[in-house]
Amino acid sequence: MKKFVNDPANFVHEMLEGLALANPKTLKWIPEHNIIYRADAPNPDRVSVIQGSGSGHEPAHVMVVGRGMLDAACPGNVFAAPPMEYVLACTKLMNSPKGVLHLINNYQGDRMCWDMAKEMAEAEGITIGTVIVDDDVSVQNSTYTVGRRGVAGNFFVIKACGAAAEAGRTLGQLVDLGQKVNSVVRTMGVALTGCTPPAKGKPIFELSDDEMEIGVGIHGEPGRRRAQFQSADAIVEEVFEAVAGDLPFKSGDKVGLMINGLGGTPISELYVLYRRAAQLSQKRGLEVVRNYVGNYCTSLEMAGMSLTLIRLDDEIDSLLSAPAEVPLRIF
Amino acid sequence: MKKFVNDPANFVHEMLEGLALANPKTLKWIPEHNIIYRADAPNPDRVSVIQGSGSGHEPAHVMVVGRGMLDAACPGNVFAAPPMEYVLACTKLMNSPKGVLHLINNYQGDRMCWDMAKEMAEAEGITIGTVIVDDDVSVQNSTYTVGRRGVAGNFFVIKACGAAAEAGRTLGQLVDLGQKVNSVVRTMGVALTGCTPPAKGKPIFELSDDEMEIGVGIHGEPGRRRAQFQSADAIVEEVFEAVAGDLPFKSGDKVGLMINGLGGTPISELYVLYRRAAQLSQKRGLEVVRNYVGNYCTSLEMAGMSLTLIRLDDEIDSLLSAPAEVPLRIF
Repeated sequence: MKKFVNDPANFVHEMLEGLALANPKTLKWIPEHNIIYRADAPNPDRVSVIQGSGSGHEPAHVMVVGRGMLDAACPGNVFAAPPMEYVLACTKLMNSPKGVLHLINNYQGDRMCWDMAKEMAEAEGITIGTVIVDDDVSVQNSTYTVGRRGVAGNFFVIKACGAAAEAGRTLGQLVDLGQKVNSVVRTMGVALTGCTPPAKGKPIFELSDDEMEIGVGIHGEPGRRRAQFQSADAIVEEVFEAVAGDLPFKSGDKVGLMINGLGGTPISELYVLYRRAAQLSQKRGLEVVRNYVGNYCTSLEMAGMSLTLIRLDDEIDSLLSAPAEVPLRIF
Repeated sequence: MKKFVNDPANFVHEMLEGLALANPKTLKWIPEHNIIYRADAPNPDRVSVIQGSGSGHEPAHVMVVGRGMLDAACPGNVFAAPPMEYVLACTKLMNSPKGVLHLINNYQGDRMCWDMAKEMAEAEGITIGTVIVDDDVSVQNSTYTVGRRGVAGNFFVIKACGAAAEAGRTLGQLVDLGQKVNSVVRTMGVALTGCTPPAKGKPIFELSDDEMEIGVGIHGEPGRRRAQFQSADAIVEEVFEAVAGDLPFKSGDKVGLMINGLGGTPISELYVLYRRAAQLSQKRGLEVVRNYVGNYCTSLEMAGMSLTLIRLDDEIDSLLSAPAEVPLRIF
């Protein structure tokens, strides 16, 4: 395993320390619970929005903590749900009279710890709302899920709820909004390689030189099928059809289109994929009014991609265009 | 070779087509010369700033065309300088009464084609200024260079000159500024793996499971030495010492610190590297007032990193903080 790590047991800790060092004015860090939070949160005048799942999916979720996005994140180890204590500590830290919104990706491990933490926080008088994200159309049940998995579509739920929380919406309104966004977002991914969690030291799965995994999960879970490797266009065509056909997206729909890299795929290839996805959108009569090309929800250094479509109405479009400020930036 | 490509001969063309499709309002594309340019350029009231080197380093340079950065870029094939005709066409297209600034990374192939294009454009009455970027401290001469190579520090030259051009500075002032920025920026990189240009189909070099290349070039050129793989902290210590000791950066200096990914390294690892680099900066008495963690100048899917330091004065700091708008964005 060649990775930029020191002691693999400290990987997440040192990543969070680096993130805190890089954002001394805007972020704070609580090492014992892996919590990264906005220096100006909680704000008693608005709902706090928090999330925390396994690490290894960066920038999700710790690198999208900031104004207009998450108030805090409390990741677990690589590909492991955060311990219940982290979630409880994060919820209490972000407690606001307006309530706390839990955004949870649909994995059994995550749901269990967030449910337990919610129960305990509510016993202490904290008001909590919950939104479950399950945008992955690949499979109905999976290695770690009952129902669909939550993957890159999560970005849109965070962005919309973060903007709406900033604008002062109530907890009930944010739960409705999060569910609405989740209901119109669909994703599917493809892996060309596995990836190696630092503490494991070995790839979580292997693909031969002419194989790919269609519908892969972001922890390397099996998807729809292991297939012969194909051209970029053929891959996009299969994935686009699966995603667009699921909602289904219809001619005349205004959409956001995301080509997400899984960590090890260069952005040049992502634009080659975007090209075909944009062409197929047009062919289907979808109007792409927003697009996203880059790494949003990754699996360490996995080579691969996912394609997300979100159906926009005026409300969602306006929230997605609201200003936000997070560590993931270029300037 | 498993990559998201169709016909490898069309890789750059299809990447640029995707980029143009993703930015229909702000960018235009001229396929026959690989030119991506701002839809609102040239502007007769200001100098046009252009660049074009080999492809495969994205986001450099085509994905930083936009307000406050480049007016246009005209990349060649992967790891190949653009043909002289592309540079000439790009220069003529961006001609402004205020002149055209050529930002050139110091590679013999690039310098030759930009020099020739400059001569021909000047013969047609176009006024051109030139800035050569050579920030890589690894080696003095290299496979493709006389003198030092231009690498990730290029981002700062583009950002400063782009902001200053936007503010109306003259061509002469921009040449002085670009040279000044280049004179205070230093970089060194490390590769953990090679990378595979699509049209070549094979890695440009190979490293065994316990090797790394210290001081690697962004086309896989040999650096200072091939070394036994080490911990993240040990790698940063060697690279930081080489970079900081070169200018040299001194206690009390205000600096920008960049940890750049070479394409295949996840951002989680980049923050692990940033952590140690920030600690070493503090130890040396450098005040990190700006930081950059992400992929700025890559080598396709190479796993690796580079570390850049730039010494800031009020002028440079202010230009680096000026607003800019490019395809490389997350919202």
